[in-house]
Amino acid sequence: MIKLVLIGTGNVAQQLYRAFTQAGNVEVIQVAGRNKAALASFQNKNSTSSIDRVRSDADIYIIAVNDDAIHTVYEQLSVVGKLVAHTSGSVPLKALSDKHRPAVFYPLQTFSHHREISLKEVPICIEATTTEDLDVLKSVASCITDRVIELSSEKRKQVHLAAVFANNFTNHLYHLAHEILAEANLPFDLLYPLIKETTAKLGEMNPYEAQTGPASRNDEGTLTRHRQLLRKPNHKLLYELLSNSIKEAHAKKL
Amino acid sequence: MIKLVLIGTGNVAQQLYRAFTQAGNVEVIQVAGRNKAALASFQNKNSTSSIDRVRSDADIYIIAVNDDAIHTVYEQLSVVGKLVAHTSGSVPLKALSDKHRPAVFYPLQTFSHHREISLKEVPICIEATTTEDLDVLKSVASCITDRVIELSSEKRKQVHLAAVFANNFTNHLYHLAHEILAEANLPFDLLYPLIKETTAKLGEMNPYEAQTGPASRNDEGTLTRHRQLLRKPNHKLLYELLSNSIKEAHAKKL
Repeated sequence: MIKLVLIGTGNVAQQLYRAFTQAGNVEVIQVAGRNKAALASFQNKNSTSSIDRVRSDADIYIIAVNDDAIHTVYEQLSVVGKLVAHTSGSVPLKALSDKHRPAVFYPLQTFSHHREISLKEVPICIEATTTEDLDVLKSVASCITDRVIELSSEKRKQVHLAAVFANNFTNHLYHLAHEILAEANLPFDLLYPLIKETTAKLGEMNPYEAQTGPASRNDEGTLTRHRQLLRKPNHKLLYELLSNSIKEAHAKKL
Repeated sequence: MIKLVLIGTGNVAQQLYRAFTQAGNVEVIQVAGRNKAALASFQNKNSTSSIDRVRSDADIYIIAVNDDAIHTVYEQLSVVGKLVAHTSGSVPLKALSDKHRPAVFYPLQTFSHHREISLKEVPICIEATTTEDLDVLKSVASCITDRVIELSSEKRKQVHLAAVFANNFTNHLYHLAHEILAEANLPFDLLYPLIKETTAKLGEMNPYEAQTGPASRNDEGTLTRHRQLLRKPNHKLLYELLSNSIKEAHAKKL
């Protein structure tokens, strides 16, 4: 049984805790976090709100806190020579000192409050400085997912950037679509089947092949009619730039 | 039994034909289209490649052709006084003459070649000039979907514009994410669980509430690190503008 201490009480920590608790081969021997109310919700009998009271007998420590706080928590942790991993997509391994054996345990997913999700298919990107530490990370990750990937800090940063395009930016476009429908007093759920099918198609073809719409076929008539409909300045600007980007990408097909 | 003639042989026509064939209460008595190879694939015994040979005994004619061709096909159709609907999101009802009884039968979905999809949950937006014609459209649409919506041309245009944001633009962002991963020799399917969860969340909260990422929390450190990673000019530009749009939308929360 691998003994694990989880530091942090936010969305990532909560989902990891749930997954580890349900998995075999790994035991969360302690949860640590400053937010006492959040900490209580874990119902872990060895929880502590003091970083000084973190147990020293774990095989691995996972710091699941905001990017900005990782460094501080890592330095405050007084266990010596232990394997200490953070869960961030963008903080490089080198940013952590050799006070501990630094590592990365980055689940490539978006986590929301009160939304229980399965980690089984979620890629967990791991990084460490020795093969022994990598083996421990692999064992721990394999308890909760079928997809463990060893990635350098450089590649992890690229993955995190791609995730911003595929999640943050697409979600914001859903918000703009929501605004456009609201102007016409129409409900957003009209678009659910379309949104579902847009992503379902990606299982069969790559997004370049899946592209449809007026910009990809250079249909200036429809583009002009759309421009006349757009009210908000940021809708106009993004419509123009995204359409141009699609046109450029698909110009060779036409 | 409602008798229907389908004009067109593209993706929309194919999906509608399949749905009507499987449904009760409506019979596709003929399929018409200039593309003989595509027409043959319908295996409809009364198919014709000549617009002059379209049968005159149908209750409704559905023109499922490209936006640019709708007007021409509508005018060429020699049946007199019949209910003739097009399937476009952006062509207004007024664009069609009173040679026939003009109407709209717009399925709000993205259709791809060889991808069979269920229309059961897909909204079909209908429009006509009389309540009698609306009733026929409702009957026909109800055969293949549970969601029939009467919409004016104005509102339909807004829906179509929102669909461009929710489908065309998001799909293009998947393409850019694909490019960013390819630069690091990483496969796009790493992002599938994230993409699935991004859209699954919309069933529980609106996209504004679902927004996460560095721009929404004004995390300048991560934004700066991302800017340094971006290589292609259109990636840089879109990163900047989408991040700014998210920041503006979420500034009040911070």
